[in-house]
Formats: sequence, structure tokens, C-alpha cells
Amino acid sequence: MSKPVIAIDMGGTMIKIGIVKEDIIMSSTSISADSGNGLRQRLPHIEGAVKDLMAQENLSCKDIAGLGIASPGIIDSNRKKILSIDKKFGDAPGIDLEDWCRRTFDLSFCIENDARAALLGEWKYGRATDLDNVVLMSLGTGVGSAAIVEGQLLRGKHFTAGILGGHFVINYKGEVCNCGNKGCVETEASTWKLNSNHKLPLSDYKAVFQLAEEGDSAALAIRDQSLEVWAACAINLIHAYDPEIIILTGGIMGSGSHIIPYIRQQTEKHAWTPWGNVKIEAAAFPSSSALYGMNYLVNSQNK
Amino acid sequence: MSKPVIAIDMGGTMIKIGIVKEDIIMSSTSISADSGNGLRQRLPHIEGAVKDLMAQENLSCKDIAGLGIASPGIIDSNRKKILSIDKKFGDAPGIDLEDWCRRTFDLSFCIENDARAALLGEWKYGRATDLDNVVLMSLGTGVGSAAIVEGQLLRGKHFTAGILGGHFVINYKGEVCNCGNKGCVETEASTWKLNSNHKLPLSDYKAVFQLAEEGDSAALAIRDQSLEVWAACAINLIHAYDPEIIILTGGIMGSGSHIIPYIRQQTEKHAWTPWGNVKIEAAAFPSSSALYGMNYLVNSQNK
Repeated sequence: MSKPVIAIDMGGTMIKIGIVKEDIIMSSTSISADSGNGLRQRLPHIEGAVKDLMAQENLSCKDIAGLGIASPGIIDSNRKKILSIDKKFGDAPGIDLEDWCRRTFDLSFCIENDARAALLGEWKYGRATDLDNVVLMSLGTGVGSAAIVEGQLLRGKHFTAGILGGHFVINYKGEVCNCGNKGCVETEASTWKLNSNHKLPLSDYKAVFQLAEEGDSAALAIRDQSLEVWAACAINLIHAYDPEIIILTGGIMGSGSHIIPYIRQQTEKHAWTPWGNVKIEAAAFPSSSALYGMNYLVNSQNK
Repeated sequence: MSKPVIAIDMGGTMIKIGIVKEDIIMSSTSISADSGNGLRQRLPHIEGAVKDLMAQENLSCKDIAGLGIASPGIIDSNRKKILSIDKKFGDAPGIDLEDWCRRTFDLSFCIENDARAALLGEWKYGRATDLDNVVLMSLGTGVGSAAIVEGQLLRGKHFTAGILGGHFVINYKGEVCNCGNKGCVETEASTWKLNSNHKLPLSDYKAVFQLAEEGDSAALAIRDQSLEVWAACAINLIHAYDPEIIILTGGIMGSGSHIIPYIRQQTEKHAWTPWGNVKIEAAAFPSSSALYGMNYLVNSQNK
């Protein structure tokens, strides 16, 4: 019987914290991310929230297997460093989180990219427990991805393999993305892109999908283009990694009941899969896959 | 000291056959592929050419470690079958090549996708012997690719991982490709696409690059768009597989001294690689990488 794990999912808006044991989240909480002001100022708040959860469950640090953080950005999971993080939590690469974890909780530590963590959670406990070739695609502020090929989580030489699906070029004549590339998936359709277009009165995809339903022509145009872009992204993920399933997740997924049927139809029509069709499914744990994934990683590391 | 291997590279125009030992091609020959008429009619010619080479080197079948075929298309390297092959050698999926090899030569047999074979040749003997994260991109009739991530050749569940770089969507509003997808790399810039445009008097990229040098405006436009497309493909390969190097090869490479510098400049400028720059290099063995790769695979299989 493995001990419980402290799992932390650093979102751009909220930081989710849970105590996870096996496939159960014993208890969890969320604190504001306030990510524009950096991660360092959040550490005391995270410490407080973790200690509150532990007290609630009558656990002390010796009852805990370790602490794992799922973070956006490029993460060196071996040296346990945040290498590069796009705007949010801009000070994070300079913080020694392993040292913070040791000093604060005296616990073993691990850190992984949030899309990889979510994929591991879905693979070990969620939508893809019976499969060994699995891709996750996350639609939200940005577009994230991660891939397991032949039972191996892809990390790559510089920890970017699998996670840059949002930065596949899908329009090589397109606009410059905030990553410096041109015509990326993200710059053609994501929440940050929607927000950066100040000519539009639409601040999120919830509004886009709702107005499109009501027949608003600007919203319809954005919805239809966004669906096309995400389908192209899914096709590229299929062509890159040869999965049996793509698990869709992320903030936008709650807004559009059209998304999964559209991507399923387009990948069935256009992806080169002579063997059959890739399953397109929603995540089993839309808001907590990454917590389950960090639970798995902490336990794997301790073995 | 390993025995020599019979290595066969099934191109769409020519079939290359070599006797390979360690890192040396002892002797080699080419026969016309006549691929429009299928593979079955070629087998007696391949048999004849192999036997001629063996006689030339005073070798009998018992001196040979095995026979390996590098083939275009989707190849099941475990069951040793050609699963899907696009137009060329249309009858190949119905031929039991392992049985043919046993009956004709009494040799052990293996088969792999030609881009994967070329990548293995470059990895074991050519441009990337010191690296474990390597991508190959082949510009020719079509656009091919293959990837080694953390020392593992990517094959995937259905043997398509790594090899569909030519079918990444890079223009999601683009034309339908002959694979059924829209706006693929290949359908935006490849020799087959050039040939299918009958309004143009240009049959190959040699003519395109030459006329562009002379200032011909139609040729300049095609050259510049093709370079942009191939750079977008290289960026997508970098974002998908996180390599240290992309090895460029294929028929078009001989034509344009601009190709490597342009792709190098664009990937340095646009790919998201905060650690540094991916090397962009020409293959060490532009016309025989796949023969070396099949030599490696036959020897690995026999171990």
C-alpha cells in the first residue's frame, strides 16, 4: 500500500493542490495563482495550503511519499528545474524548488510539464489505462500536448518532445506567435489569441460558442476557424506519434459540445491511418489528471 | 567480424542493391524500378542482380548474414509486411517477401521503411554517430522523415510514428493531398506536386533552382515558396521530436545549394529551442544511407 502524495498543479489562473493516494484524491484545494507576480511570492501560500490539507487529513510529513509539481513550460525532470516558462511565473527558472520542498516539508520532490503529468494521470488511472500509445491535447489559454509512444513517455534530449503541439506550424504564411514562430496552432486559435484581438468583444471561448449558437456571424467565423485549427493540430499529433487515442482536455473543452465530434469527424476523414481510426475522447479527470500524474511520478521515483 | 548483408533500397525510379559489410559497400548496382508495373515482376530481376553481385564478390548464400529491404510506405517490421504503399509498387502488400527471400536465397529477412533505414544508416555509420536524438528529412518525389528519440527509433503502434513528416498540415486552408489530408507539406512543395502542375514548364527542382538563378519569376516564386514549406516542415519535426540534428537527404538536395542554409536560418530564427540550435546537415551517404541502415538491422536481428 503506497503512502499518499502531495500533488500540485500550477495553472496560470489557479494553483491546485491535492493529497492523492492510489487513484483517489483524498482532499484538495485551489489558491489564486497570481502568476503575473511570479512563483516565489506564492510559495508561502502553497506551504500554508498544503499544511492545511495535511492537518485536515491528520497526516504529518512522515506519512507522505513525496511532493510533485506539474508546471507549464519546459521542465528538466532529471535535474528538477523549470528551464523555460512562457510569461507566467517568470521567476520560476531561478527558484530551487527541490531545495524549497526539502526545507519546508523534508519530502522527496519531482516536477514535470503539466501536459505530460495530465497524460500520465489519464494513462495510469483515467481514459487510457489499457493503451500504450496515447496523446493528450489540451485546449486552453494555450494549446498543450504530450505523447506516450510504445509505452514510453516522450521527453526528448531537451525535454520538449511531445509538448509543443501548440507550436506546430499549421499556417506557414500565418502571423507571428508569441514563441517567435509563424502560424502556430496557438496563434491561430487559443484563448490568449482571442484576448489579444481587441477588436472583438469576445473574451473567452464560452462566449464564442454561446454567441455562435445564437447565430452571431463574428462568433461563428471564430468558432469554425478554431475548430479547423484544432483538427489540424490533432491530425499533426496523429501523424507525429501514431497514437491509438487522443485525449482532449483543457479549459475550452467545457464550452463546446461541438469540439469532440468535429475533431473526430476531421481526423477520421483526413488523418493517414490505414489501420482504422484514432479514438478521440474527453479526459476522465478534466480538472485533476495532472494531480494523478504527479502521484504516479512520485511513486515511480521512490521505487 | 560480422558477415556481409544483401541490402536493397526500393526507390520509385531505381532499385539499389548492395553487398554491405561493416561500414563498407563491397559492391552495388541499380536496376530500373518500373514501379508502375508493380513489385512482383521485378523480383526475378532483383534475384538476378543479387546473384551477379555475389558472384562478382565470390560469395555464396552461406557467406551472407541476411537480406534487408528498405521500402517506401508503411512497413510492419515485426511481421515483415508492407502494409500500405502510395501508388508505387501497388501490389507489394500482397507479396510475402520473407517467403520469397527464403525460397530464393535461404537467407534471414528484414524490411523497414526507407526513411527509417536511411536514418539508421546515418546514425550508425554517417552524420550522427555520436548523437541519440536524430531526425531525418528527405526531399524528393515526396517528403519523408524518421526520428530517433532518446536512442530509440520511433515506430509507433501502427508503424507510422516519425515517418509522416511530409504529411504534417502546414497550411490548414490548403489543397487536398494525395493522402486525403489537406495542406500537407508534400502537397505544398514536392516533386510529385511540381509534376502535377501542368501549367508549369518545370518538371523537377533542378530546373526550378536553375531558372530561379537566372531570374525567372515563376521559378523564383516556386523556389521561395518551396523553401518556406520545407523550413516549416523542419520546424514541426523539431517541435515534435526535440532532435539535436536534422539530416537532410533526398533527390532534391543535389539541386539547391540554398536549401541547407535557408532551413538552418529559419529553424534558428523560429524553432522553440531555448537550449541552442538544432544542427541542420546533409546526409553523409546521400544515395546509400538506407543500404547501411538495412545492414545494421539485419545484424541486429541476427544477434
